Amino acid sequence: MSLTNLGFSFNHIMLRVLDQERALSFYRDILGMEITRQREYESGRFTNTFLAFPGETTAIELTYNWDQKEPYSKGDNFGHLALMVDDVREACDYLESKGVTIRTPPKVMNHGTRMLAFVYDFEENLIELVEPLKENE
Amino acid sequence: MSLTNLGFSFNHIMLRVLDQERALSFYRDILGMEITRQREYESGRFTNTFLAFPGETTAIELTYNWDQKEPYSKGDNFGHLALMVDDVREACDYLESKGVTIRTPPKVMNHGTRMLAFVYDFEENLIELVEPLKENE
Repeated sequence: MSLTNLGFSFNHIMLRVLDQERALSFYRDILGMEITRQREYESGRFTNTFLAFPGETTAIELTYNWDQKEPYSKGDNFGHLALMVDDVREACDYLESKGVTIRTPPKVMNHGTRMLAFVYDFEENLIELVEPLKENE
Repeated sequence: MSLTNLGFSFNHIMLRVLDQERALSFYRDILGMEITRQREYESGRFTNTFLAFPGETTAIELTYNWDQKEPYSKGDNFGHLALMVDDVREACDYLESKGVTIRTPPKVMNHGTRMLAFVYDFEENLIELVEPLKENE
């Protein structure tokens, strides 16, 4: 079996969410992602919703288990989801105006040169905002 | 501030890895991702490596903290990273031949119709393999 024939590509990441409506208000309504697929699995008692930015194929899958009552635990292996924006400061101003918690306001990366910020989604998953790299970064 | 002017796009996810060389053997050598950027931050004592599949912009950032001694903890919020492949069975055969642990051999999704499999990377992060959706799925 040859690797080159297998066609690997990045497809999605899956996050479990306690409050589906609130998660959609973040990813769909505030970030502007579009629902590309949503299915309810009655027998498994969960709903999977795939969202992607317009024109993109990489998706976020939100898994909502209907009977989950406690917030999902967080580990240290998964650090963050990073989104590129044209201007980190403008993006933070926009997100703050929508009630999003800014964890790290726009600043130059520690030990580096890149402008970035960190915000939380509505279940405290960390979202990094980055700008396109400039020369020599 | 208008959402439509901010230019949000999916950029990368960040995983912390205990063993950088072993992580690269999985993501670069076995999966065939390419290193698009790697920087060592001497003062912060960490290395960041970005990898992407050829021709793709969505990346995985591997953060290697030089002084980390224990495996990183895992939570329930982050479920998996999903990769699309042309044929899940062939991809699993290939990965198994490379020493990758298959957690869930190729099968039809529980409560669904889609063919999938789950494997572990070398630090037991869950990787889903999916095939392109067929009609009516």
